[in-house]
Amino acid sequence: MRLLFIGDVVGRAGRAAVQSRLPRLRESWALDFVIVNGENAAGGFGITEAICEEMLQAGADCVTLGNHAFDQREALVFIERQPRLLRPVNYPPGTPGRGANLFAAARGQQVLVVNVQGRVFMDQLDDPFAAIERELAACPLGVACDAAMIDMHAETTSEKMAMAHFVDGKASLVAGTHTHVPTADCQILPHGAGYISDAGMTGDYDSVIGMDKEEPLRRFIRKTPGARYEPAQGEATLCGVAVEIGGSGLAQKIAPVRLGGRLSQAWPEFWGAP
Amino acid sequence: MRLLFIGDVVGRAGRAAVQSRLPRLRESWALDFVIVNGENAAGGFGITEAICEEMLQAGADCVTLGNHAFDQREALVFIERQPRLLRPVNYPPGTPGRGANLFAAARGQQVLVVNVQGRVFMDQLDDPFAAIERELAACPLGVACDAAMIDMHAETTSEKMAMAHFVDGKASLVAGTHTHVPTADCQILPHGAGYISDAGMTGDYDSVIGMDKEEPLRRFIRKTPGARYEPAQGEATLCGVAVEIGGSGLAQKIAPVRLGGRLSQAWPEFWGAP
Amino acid sequence: MRLLFIGDVVGRAGRAAVQSRLPRLRESWALDFVIVNGENAAGGFGITEAICEEMLQAGADCVTLGNHAFDQREALVFIERQPRLLRPVNYPPGTPGRGANLFAAARGQQVLVVNVQGRVFMDQLDDPFAAIERELAACPLGVACDAAMIDMHAETTSEKMAMAHFVDGKASLVAGTHTHVPTADCQILPHGAGYISDAGMTGDYDSVIGMDKEEPLRRFIRKTPGARYEPAQGEATLCGVAVEIGGSGLAQKIAPVRLGGRLSQAWPEFWGAP
Amino acid sequence: MRLLFIGDVVGRAGRAAVQSRLPRLRESWALDFVIVNGENAAGGFGITEAICEEMLQAGADCVTLGNHAFDQREALVFIERQPRLLRPVNYPPGTPGRGANLFAAARGQQVLVVNVQGRVFMDQLDDPFAAIERELAACPLGVACDAAMIDMHAETTSEKMAMAHFVDGKASLVAGTHTHVPTADCQILPHGAGYISDAGMTGDYDSVIGMDKEEPLRRFIRKTPGARYEPAQGEATLCGVAVEIGGSGLAQKIAPVRLGGRLSQAWPEFWGAP
Ligand SMILES: [Fe+2]
Ligand SMILES: [Fe+2]
Ligand SMILES: [Fe+2]
Ligand SMILES: [Fe+2]
Ligand SMILES: [Fe+2]
Ligand SMILES: [Fe+2]
Ligand SMILES: [Fe+2]
Ligand SMILES: [Fe+2]
Repeated sequence: MRLLFIGDVVGRAGRAAVQSRLPRLRESWALDFVIVNGENAAGGFGITEAICEEMLQAGADCVTLGNHAFDQREALVFIERQPRLLRPVNYPPGTPGRGANLFAAARGQQVLVVNVQGRVFMDQLDDPFAAIERELAACPLGVACDAAMIDMHAETTSEKMAMAHFVDGKASLVAGTHTHVPTADCQILPHGAGYISDAGMTGDYDSVIGMDKEEPLRRFIRKTPGARYEPAQGEATLCGVAVEIGGSGLAQKIAPVRLGGRLSQAWPEFWGAP
Repeated sequence: MRLLFIGDVVGRAGRAAVQSRLPRLRESWALDFVIVNGENAAGGFGITEAICEEMLQAGADCVTLGNHAFDQREALVFIERQPRLLRPVNYPPGTPGRGANLFAAARGQQVLVVNVQGRVFMDQLDDPFAAIERELAACPLGVACDAAMIDMHAETTSEKMAMAHFVDGKASLVAGTHTHVPTADCQILPHGAGYISDAGMTGDYDSVIGMDKEEPLRRFIRKTPGARYEPAQGEATLCGVAVEIGGSGLAQKIAPVRLGGRLSQAWPEFWGAP
Repeated sequence: MRLLFIGDVVGRAGRAAVQSRLPRLRESWALDFVIVNGENAAGGFGITEAICEEMLQAGADCVTLGNHAFDQREALVFIERQPRLLRPVNYPPGTPGRGANLFAAARGQQVLVVNVQGRVFMDQLDDPFAAIERELAACPLGVACDAAMIDMHAETTSEKMAMAHFVDGKASLVAGTHTHVPTADCQILPHGAGYISDAGMTGDYDSVIGMDKEEPLRRFIRKTPGARYEPAQGEATLCGVAVEIGGSGLAQKIAPVRLGGRLSQAWPEFWGAP
Repeated sequence: MRLLFIGDVVGRAGRAAVQSRLPRLRESWALDFVIVNGENAAGGFGITEAICEEMLQAGADCVTLGNHAFDQREALVFIERQPRLLRPVNYPPGTPGRGANLFAAARGQQVLVVNVQGRVFMDQLDDPFAAIERELAACPLGVACDAAMIDMHAETTSEKMAMAHFVDGKASLVAGTHTHVPTADCQILPHGAGYISDAGMTGDYDSVIGMDKEEPLRRFIRKTPGARYEPAQGEATLCGVAVEIGGSGLAQKIAPVRLGGRLSQAWPEFWGAP
């Protein structure tokens, strides 16, 4: 089974990259399932219903979120009627929407997706390890699903790597998000989980994590408030990770994806140039 | 001018990778200057004089540090007599050792190296932006030095990217360290500074940021203290970034380096296979 | 019902204040129940079994803890056999010991004590609000217990005040701990809960939060490690809060207690000079 | 010399307390100098020029700020023309306004006031210890000024106590602000500096640190955004600290002030009931 995970889409530039590239990728790579993190899709902060629909139509099967999930308040409402949109599963009980769901992939395979948020240097949510253990137990890989995909939205590499080892053997992929920079450490862990510390953002890399660099730089230096943050407008690099999953539900191949924009280009050689 | 920057060397496995690979790399790539971050070289925490000497003999011209600089107390003493060992420049005035120095490279070129530490989610040091501005002004690129290399030891991608844009046009390279994961975003910024958010650690990637995974995982899950942290013992990946610097002191070519161990292998095609 | 809550006992000086004063206070004030926070009793870090016993013998009915609960590893063991020692209830399931218990007071009244830890600027534990809601629901005030006492071990005043309002009407007292400084805001909230943001430490106030001031000051200024932290040795001020609870289980009177040492002296006028 | 320091004035309720009480206090206590922290005076966030003038007219000689200094952007402008308004001195060089100033008190005495911000769990400003050392050296107590007053705006008790010991013997008073809760630890340190960990807010104490409790409580529990924060509207307690300073510039007497509202009332017995 072929899955593509695309990291935090930032603003208009990021959305344009998804719109223009994802439909073709889906086809040329014969993708079975696509996950897109959309927490920064609306001007860098949150997501709207229109943008979510746009992403699903471009070829996403599931859109995940993170600490910016509800920056656009309408997400608190429309997430209830959109089963393909997930927010971190370890928000408190009663939070609108869901943090995990089981989807049918292109050829009927059952794909569990869980969005979870780390706690180190982030907001104080419920234990992400306990939450993931619960979700994987409720839908065991190879029994109730053919693939189990985890979007671990977290600041530190230590919490992400710990999570990956925690589920190794029980999940197909742990893809980190949130730092907005792709890491070069994708690998298959000893017990078969695919892993990357961060899938990277889908945005303009001549920026400060996707935002126009002037204002962030100003605040680091001056410590006084200035203008609003605005997404950078240069061509985005679509960043993500490609994973091929075997009959056992474990990862067989994994490779980074970086298409367009300023970063060095990368794609899975095992699927061919896009 | 050819420079190699190697990220946080972790424990015995990391040191072994440096010992076994660096001498050959220096020769086969005709390197002019080599920087190694050694803040985790001694059992994961700090550096000893013997280890520092070992790294210099293996081919490092300069060893940089970070928040773990003085975990081994002897570093507070021997750093005073070792001009090739740098600790973050923005420690308070009066801190033993220095944070910047000018070195002669292989063919006599003058190389400024500055080690600086970020402040977001880290200890409260002096302003890294002001410190870097001061150092670069004291030794301007193209005037007082042929290359200006910055080891930005920081937690967040935003502070690292902001620093890189801050010095773009005035420094040759900003290489991030501290997260222990290599990023896949190396690029030459609009005004000529080479940049990578993190060079990655030189350590075993079947671990939690270089440490044996059992105890970190335990603490994330259980929240009670257990055994000591120990470095993971598997084969290390030597991680870093290669940069070719022109007569202006700006970066002309940049590429990641990942040799040995579990990660996908990478080297600068412009210098050839190692 | 007369209850006394004593804040974080720090080191030998703090223990001496408890030993010398508590037995007399128990008698002269005819106390029905006494809680002592003992997380810093052993040299400033954690608690040993001997020290816990000593406190119980001096007149404590219950000893609570906090983020330093297990600094002395033996606490992970003996807490299992000591039902009068509580650690924060929102540690992960499976943590040794318990976070809440129901005790018989001097005249047979049932007193629920819950120790809970905040999360802002502290370790990432489970949701303290959900945990407290669960404990109070399991043992409702006026139904299953005659008093419900909460030790809210937290860094920020905002999280403590929020907790107090959260349980107002359902608990007898929310006493903050952890900052090691008594606050002057004790009051009875609109629905009857007694409240103080911090009970204060029982330790030497010519110090940095109870520790000999030299080393903490050094670290703030120099940012390099020096000697070990040691508790300050001057006479301690026994700090706490006195509360009188009515038949409904709500607070009727509340007053600060500060006895001995450098701080201005205070005691409940409604119980008389100690 | 008689000085009164009033802690963070929060919103309309806090301002009303200052307006109605300060003129009479100035007179009945024959105050020589009054400092008011105004960082939350404008709807809880920052200060406007009109509000600053109002406070000066009510009897403040100097208005200090903190991390909310520039929440109202106009403060970036009018602070330049208002020498009686201070923002933390350790903002970066070039920040509008000043962090320290020398004022003439009622009978011509020279009073140095310095506003400084801590760094633990706060924004990353310059070293507050180095900044204070510089200011006190530039205007030595007993030589260039008759009193040296420090508003230490900080989150943790440890950083505040460390600062107080750092300047003990060289400053008249270190009054903490920012936590919005008065502490009960005011004392004269061994070398003569008056000290209180927090002066407390001047606001409604049936609240979460001065704000209407509903929304803060909601966010602690739900973790999703709701309404705006609004100051609580109940009667404020004017909170502060009174200090009598001798010819040497050191503190001779110190006492808390709490007038109006829900908290237990307090005033300096050495000056008489207000
Ligand atoms: Fe993001
Ligand atoms: Fe995020
Ligand atoms: Fe490191
Ligand atoms: Fe580090
Ligand atoms: Fe404590
Ligand atoms: Fe504590
Ligand atoms: Fe404030
Ligand atoms: Fe503040």
